Amino acid sequence: MNSFGNIFRVTSFGESHGIAIGGVIDGMPAGVPIDIEAVQHQLNRRRPGQSELTTQRSETDSVEFLSGIHNGVSTGTPIGFIIRNCDHRPEDYSDLSSAFRPNHADYTYYAKYGIRDARGGGRSSARETAIRVVAGAIALQALKILGINIWAYTSGIGKYKITKHYSKLNPMDVDSNPVRCPDEAKASRMMSYISKLKESGNTVGGTISCIISGVPAGLGEPVGNKLQAELAAAMMSINAAKGFEYGLGFKSAEMLGDEVLDLFTTDSMQCVHTISNFSGGIQGGISNGEDIYFKVAFKPVATLLMDIPTINDSLEPIVLRPRGRHDSCVVPRAVPVVEAMAAITIFDAYLRNKSCTFKI
Amino acid sequence: MNSFGNIFRVTSFGESHGIAIGGVIDGMPAGVPIDIEAVQHQLNRRRPGQSELTTQRSETDSVEFLSGIHNGVSTGTPIGFIIRNCDHRPEDYSDLSSAFRPNHADYTYYAKYGIRDARGGGRSSARETAIRVVAGAIALQALKILGINIWAYTSGIGKYKITKHYSKLNPMDVDSNPVRCPDEAKASRMMSYISKLKESGNTVGGTISCIISGVPAGLGEPVGNKLQAELAAAMMSINAAKGFEYGLGFKSAEMLGDEVLDLFTTDSMQCVHTISNFSGGIQGGISNGEDIYFKVAFKPVATLLMDIPTINDSLEPIVLRPRGRHDSCVVPRAVPVVEAMAAITIFDAYLRNKSCTFKI
Amino acid sequence: MNSFGNIFRVTSFGESHGIAIGGVIDGMPAGVPIDIEAVQHQLNRRRPGQSELTTQRSETDSVEFLSGIHNGVSTGTPIGFIIRNCDHRPEDYSDLSSAFRPNHADYTYYAKYGIRDARGGGRSSARETAIRVVAGAIALQALKILGINIWAYTSGIGKYKITKHYSKLNPMDVDSNPVRCPDEAKASRMMSYISKLKESGNTVGGTISCIISGVPAGLGEPVGNKLQAELAAAMMSINAAKGFEYGLGFKSAEMLGDEVLDLFTTDSMQCVHTISNFSGGIQGGISNGEDIYFKVAFKPVATLLMDIPTINDSLEPIVLRPRGRHDSCVVPRAVPVVEAMAAITIFDAYLRNKSCTFKI
Amino acid sequence: MNSFGNIFRVTSFGESHGIAIGGVIDGMPAGVPIDIEAVQHQLNRRRPGQSELTTQRSETDSVEFLSGIHNGVSTGTPIGFIIRNCDHRPEDYSDLSSAFRPNHADYTYYAKYGIRDARGGGRSSARETAIRVVAGAIALQALKILGINIWAYTSGIGKYKITKHYSKLNPMDVDSNPVRCPDEAKASRMMSYISKLKESGNTVGGTISCIISGVPAGLGEPVGNKLQAELAAAMMSINAAKGFEYGLGFKSAEMLGDEVLDLFTTDSMQCVHTISNFSGGIQGGISNGEDIYFKVAFKPVATLLMDIPTINDSLEPIVLRPRGRHDSCVVPRAVPVVEAMAAITIFDAYLRNKSCTFKI
Repeated sequence: MNSFGNIFRVTSFGESHGIAIGGVIDGMPAGVPIDIEAVQHQLNRRRPGQSELTTQRSETDSVEFLSGIHNGVSTGTPIGFIIRNCDHRPEDYSDLSSAFRPNHADYTYYAKYGIRDARGGGRSSARETAIRVVAGAIALQALKILGINIWAYTSGIGKYKITKHYSKLNPMDVDSNPVRCPDEAKASRMMSYISKLKESGNTVGGTISCIISGVPAGLGEPVGNKLQAELAAAMMSINAAKGFEYGLGFKSAEMLGDEVLDLFTTDSMQCVHTISNFSGGIQGGISNGEDIYFKVAFKPVATLLMDIPTINDSLEPIVLRPRGRHDSCVVPRAVPVVEAMAAITIFDAYLRNKSCTFKI
Repeated sequence: MNSFGNIFRVTSFGESHGIAIGGVIDGMPAGVPIDIEAVQHQLNRRRPGQSELTTQRSETDSVEFLSGIHNGVSTGTPIGFIIRNCDHRPEDYSDLSSAFRPNHADYTYYAKYGIRDARGGGRSSARETAIRVVAGAIALQALKILGINIWAYTSGIGKYKITKHYSKLNPMDVDSNPVRCPDEAKASRMMSYISKLKESGNTVGGTISCIISGVPAGLGEPVGNKLQAELAAAMMSINAAKGFEYGLGFKSAEMLGDEVLDLFTTDSMQCVHTISNFSGGIQGGISNGEDIYFKVAFKPVATLLMDIPTINDSLEPIVLRPRGRHDSCVVPRAVPVVEAMAAITIFDAYLRNKSCTFKI
Repeated sequence: MNSFGNIFRVTSFGESHGIAIGGVIDGMPAGVPIDIEAVQHQLNRRRPGQSELTTQRSETDSVEFLSGIHNGVSTGTPIGFIIRNCDHRPEDYSDLSSAFRPNHADYTYYAKYGIRDARGGGRSSARETAIRVVAGAIALQALKILGINIWAYTSGIGKYKITKHYSKLNPMDVDSNPVRCPDEAKASRMMSYISKLKESGNTVGGTISCIISGVPAGLGEPVGNKLQAELAAAMMSINAAKGFEYGLGFKSAEMLGDEVLDLFTTDSMQCVHTISNFSGGIQGGISNGEDIYFKVAFKPVATLLMDIPTINDSLEPIVLRPRGRHDSCVVPRAVPVVEAMAAITIFDAYLRNKSCTFKI
Repeated sequence: MNSFGNIFRVTSFGESHGIAIGGVIDGMPAGVPIDIEAVQHQLNRRRPGQSELTTQRSETDSVEFLSGIHNGVSTGTPIGFIIRNCDHRPEDYSDLSSAFRPNHADYTYYAKYGIRDARGGGRSSARETAIRVVAGAIALQALKILGINIWAYTSGIGKYKITKHYSKLNPMDVDSNPVRCPDEAKASRMMSYISKLKESGNTVGGTISCIISGVPAGLGEPVGNKLQAELAAAMMSINAAKGFEYGLGFKSAEMLGDEVLDLFTTDSMQCVHTISNFSGGIQGGISNGEDIYFKVAFKPVATLLMDIPTINDSLEPIVLRPRGRHDSCVVPRAVPVVEAMAAITIFDAYLRNKSCTFKI
């Protein structure tokens, strides 16, 4: 299906080269002030053509809200919205209409649905994530009022990785460079690496790290819908995502029990905390009040500006020669998408948790 | 909630030290032969006390089916079942009844529900995964008839990791040693490592790899419910799981686009295949007919046979002195759980996919 | 929430006096030809201003599809669409912005959401049903290919009721008069009755009967999601619906067991049928292959062209003086809505049922 | 599927002549005191053999809770329970194993699942409703704490109907006679009518009325999941139910707009109320704080103690000669089932509504 979330549920529609893409947010509580410019800001962070590093398609990605917001406040009814595809030029993709592009979803869609929609990547295009960014931006605003903050950053491009702990980084620095890496030294190496790749027509993968702070203890469900499971599903639903880990992640598989214990303490307000946070803010599927942090791995963009041998839907061998605009590394643009999916997941868990307690 | 799956839906109940745990499988199609001994076999692979390496609690974990199977065949109605907790001795845990054990879910459950259930880990115990093993074993049988096979194995314990590609390993070798590692040389190193840890009271993490072969192209959904997202959620819902990756996973974040291309080919039957399978059998959230393979990271068991300083629910500092039976490494026992969760996920996707196509 | 259906799921958004209303159809199988004019035809049957009998608001209710249909065929991806509110004049409703109108949802929305959306009935307006008509019209087309036909008609307006069995009526006659009553004699009495009411500013209720033929045996679920329960929920979700009955309905409560037995027979093709069909085509929640027929009761329209004493949201007594356009009887316009909700329900059950059977 | 509810979700399993039937209640909030005897009391009101009027099968219907309740209080984890089928004698039904009984679900199950489960009605037996009574009894207890009360009564048996308004009846009188009719004069006529029918082997239908008081304004959803739609689905999912109406129901279809207006007023506490309550406590799908009342129609029991001509699954004509124990009228036993389904629906709506509001 095309939805995310249970109580706060986002349903997405639209092909990248149709008239418009759009979405519906169901379950948004009433009375939350919505800053539409802040929504547009997140969209702008995702859209193509932001810098030399990314594709030059001049999509404006301007969101138009159709319902559910009145006088700047959510009404409790579904929020419908569309983003027009201003720059859609189906002919650009005409030579692709019968090709199965390697590492794209052309073949799997065809295998599933039995038909080809010749308009570019259609539904499988990462353009669809713009819908999630809109919904996520609204969730982010609601979470902020609740004291929950979410920020993500590029933590790796190819071999270049941030080694500093996130507490040594400043969220304000993320957008200080086009690669969205808040470690300035690493950022410049990443950028020159990507620029060089761009010339060769090649692409590279990377990782995004995300931190969620201010989450109250108690969000998440104990067996199904564990908080880390919901986050994992949300992240693995982003185009090109290949891995997810939270807390110490894969590293914890190599460690000893006494090395990863998060011992308890209480603060001056008699609130329970842990001294360390190897666990990443979740125990038994439920948040414990510490920072939730996780990392997502992205594979290199599949479209290369090279001759690519492949087959078409008549199973004939062909050679693809992609031209024009393309991203050498999509990771910087995926940063707001990671934030959006995290926000959708956490706000949904927050609303769901309200049903867990019985108070008169 | 306490369910997995949408069409093939498993709902789990029961505390580790109550009378029984149990489950309901809803959406099992009618007419599938069910081999109850094969179900019990998977349960036996999960249960404690299988070897020197794991806990000596003599739980028999015997499943009792109450409905939904008649004359050895599924009837289409829900399959209800229970597993009695033969060995439940609540007093064993009496000193734990007020403690918040580090890296356990005691505190988060208390924060969420506002009450303590004094009976051991209660619902957060990994014992709950026995329910999933039952449901997964039934899904495995249905999948086998469809030509889909699933197998998992211990691919790492601490620093000891299998480096061979899975195609060089034999599924038949998984159970040839208690650590469930089909690489004999690595297995013996892992085993002596765990034995040594056991003496010290410490624990260690590890990884499990899983391969799903014979999946037809077309399973999975394009935006929500992508096949890798569902698998990630299923795996991250297993106790102690900290990371998930499929295909090249985190490694792909360091690679170039032209290094990971899975070029298309056709076989003698004019079926579409890829020459390599870096992608791990899924494109755009939909299976492409190649092997699906993934890896799950598990943190070390939280219960250490050491003095552990912590607090209780009156926020007083206490020292825990766990005694008796315990697992130094839970990874070998988690192998059938990984298989079960994979089977539930894939069978659910298979059944759901039947609704995607419109044929008279 | 704002969705209908499970596999074939329609999500609706939009307020009656916003920019547009719209919807998303998720789960539409690929490869079904979509006749957009036939969709518009059903919308036209629902829209206001069709005849002297109904409101004169000149809404054109023109549907604009944004995704999911390519070259006249469904692609398997979500079908997004909008209907612009051409004739929206918020000022018409300005005096209502603080009133709680009796028998409207003004107060209950306010009690639920804590805010007023001053634009007319907003979300609670029956205009929302246009979205369901679009989705239902698409389901109707898919069902037709499967040999399933659905038709509804006005079976009662006030005291005027059709007494003939539906088999004595012709579906072709439904639209031969504005009241959508296929019994010509009854239709003219209904029409003159409504015309008289219109002069007095009063309104009247009525009933709609619906027949679904060609449903294969086996649709519906045995306990939750019984076919009659899903149909009841679908019908009771239509604005102003107050009652639902199928088969003999309330009459069967007065009858004896031997009077209502539907004895079995087999036809020349060795297909099982029942001689009578008192049961209305469903046994144990599952269709039996006979006609499914049911009746829905609608209360009179709440807006009367009379002085109505009420209170406003400051709890002050006020007198409402509705003016201008209004429906004396909404039943004829609800006929395509009943057909739409029936189609959504049956097509959803059809698709779900495909997951019940296990065939290699 | 075999579940009811969304947040408060009950999943049912078990065949009437297997070892046991059972259920899982997921989403029960923690901290609610559970009176197990009160649960058993509702089960006793449903079970067969309560009086001369109903079947003499001596099923004890004793509920055994397996999880989710600790020291008499809900823990927030799923409540699993079973009811053993003490009196199961499969041989009683051996002659039925191949028959398609008229007005039973034998044929439709066979059409759906392709197999016969020879053990009596199996899953389609009304015995399954015992599971709902358990879950409903728990919901009733939670609702009572919230000030919400639910009671139902037999309002009609054949032609004998209560004409008094429910406000003239005393909930305490419902169980003062075996027919569960709180109008003593009508009750004795109903009872003698049923006794006479019992001799002839015939059966009769009836109606049950239900009143829900103390519901706060704001429960229910505006488009999908309207409160009346959920109630209708819950009631129509009860075996033998053929119709549902709330408020004035079908009668409102014959009435004028000015006859059914529920004018607003405020009480001494400045709370909004309506002077009359023709609407039945719901406007626009959302409760308005007045009593919710509705009526359900039940067809006569299908099993008659008469020779019944039918066919078997080889499509051969046969004559059934049911013997022994049977109900001439199942309505009195369905009273606690109606209460249970109403309680499940309202408690689910209550919990869901907690997610609608955004308060820090």
